[in-house]
Amino acid sequence: MCQLLGMNSLKPARLSFSLEGFLRRGGETDEHADGWGIALYEDRRCQLLIDELPSARSPLAEWIQLYSGRSRNVIAHIRKATQGSISATNCHPFLRHLWGQEWSFAHNGNLDVSKLPAPVCFTPCGQTDSEHAFCLLLDGLFSRFGRQAPGLAQLSQTLAELARLIAAAGSFNFVLSNGEWLFTHRSTELHYLQRAYPFGRAHLLDCPLGIDFSRHNEQDDRMIIVATRPLTDEHWQPLPVGELAVFAEGRRVAC
Amino acid sequence: MCQLLGMNSLKPARLSFSLEGFLRRGGETDEHADGWGIALYEDRRCQLLIDELPSARSPLAEWIQLYSGRSRNVIAHIRKATQGSISATNCHPFLRHLWGQEWSFAHNGNLDVSKLPAPVCFTPCGQTDSEHAFCLLLDGLFSRFGRQAPGLAQLSQTLAELARLIAAAGSFNFVLSNGEWLFTHRSTELHYLQRAYPFGRAHLLDCPLGIDFSRHNEQDDRMIIVATRPLTDEHWQPLPVGELAVFAEGRRVAC
Repeated sequence: MCQLLGMNSLKPARLSFSLEGFLRRGGETDEHADGWGIALYEDRRCQLLIDELPSARSPLAEWIQLYSGRSRNVIAHIRKATQGSISATNCHPFLRHLWGQEWSFAHNGNLDVSKLPAPVCFTPCGQTDSEHAFCLLLDGLFSRFGRQAPGLAQLSQTLAELARLIAAAGSFNFVLSNGEWLFTHRSTELHYLQRAYPFGRAHLLDCPLGIDFSRHNEQDDRMIIVATRPLTDEHWQPLPVGELAVFAEGRRVAC
Repeated sequence: MCQLLGMNSLKPARLSFSLEGFLRRGGETDEHADGWGIALYEDRRCQLLIDELPSARSPLAEWIQLYSGRSRNVIAHIRKATQGSISATNCHPFLRHLWGQEWSFAHNGNLDVSKLPAPVCFTPCGQTDSEHAFCLLLDGLFSRFGRQAPGLAQLSQTLAELARLIAAAGSFNFVLSNGEWLFTHRSTELHYLQRAYPFGRAHLLDCPLGIDFSRHNEQDDRMIIVATRPLTDEHWQPLPVGELAVFAEGRRVAC
């Protein structure tokens, strides 16, 4: 199986601390060593970076930690291959364009694609069940809304319906973003955390590294972190099973 | 204006030497300092990297020179902004998906978009004439061939027709790839070069750097380099004005 990470922040922010712990699970503190990827939204543009190397030993990961800019939304994924060969084509996140927006998606779980329809407008480049499901989500949005992007409420409702249909074919934990909003769905395992004022201290669970967020944040900073398994000793909450969750401007919103 | 670089190689290869000279034109030996980008095809998967910084001073450029893998196709672009703000969203190459293929595109020149139709299926994320034109090319391909990818001959013929139509709205030098083939179109300035056995020596025009390609290549290596202006003291040839050129497996092919 794989692990997921997502961020949605009110203001552009760097994910360095949580990312540090997450990337170590790619071949160092855990077994997810079949490649990794990250989608960093600088403004609404998605910088998608993929590496077949284990994230714990990836020069690209080092480069991101040193040089990447601040983002309002981030999606990252470390892979333990179950369907599809070990290649960059099969690494998450996947990217597609819809309504002049760049959509990125990463999945954890296994889907029986023989139980799913074939995507029509959005077609996969690789062999994974995950990219297949992503294409089905976008197909469903395009078929429902055509060329006009809907508002958040309509979008969330349709995504929830589509996610339910796809989740019937197996296990469907995902993180999805268009650079403005972060959507998640939990079948088996997915947690989230809000960091907001008053900021406190935190320690990574994967390595002896701590941080005092009150020294790095202002009073009006606010962000959500989503991860398959908690990354720190903060107050992580499990997301409800079988539901879509929606995050905007650094908080969870009703959908 | 901007400058373009393209590579099409029979075998996976690194473009380090030519890229070194090209990237210096982004703010050091020339004025193209409003961002840059590169699409590197590792197998058929496109790693698209964009940076708003001038390429001559970009840590990402350094990272690519040190760590990127070998590619069969590459497209790169250094930008001097004419239409659209200086932002990552407006940096080339642009990326879209069609027929399970990842298409990347970079443009040099100015198009009067008021003389062009609005793209229908493929819509721009940014404000440039270039992304508009790219979306029109893909719209045209999708409208002509539907969901089934054509062979090279049909594809080239249609691209040539589409390029001619769009070029009527201004200046349309471009490089385009789907990870297998490289297509170019020249309105004003575009050159190409084939490197093949017997390999010789070359010197960059932008800095005092030379290479003996016979020491770095095997007898059956073969590649094409396309650039707005020659990068080395090798035998560069201008491409014909107003024509689409097609490159496959490291050589120019009739279209």
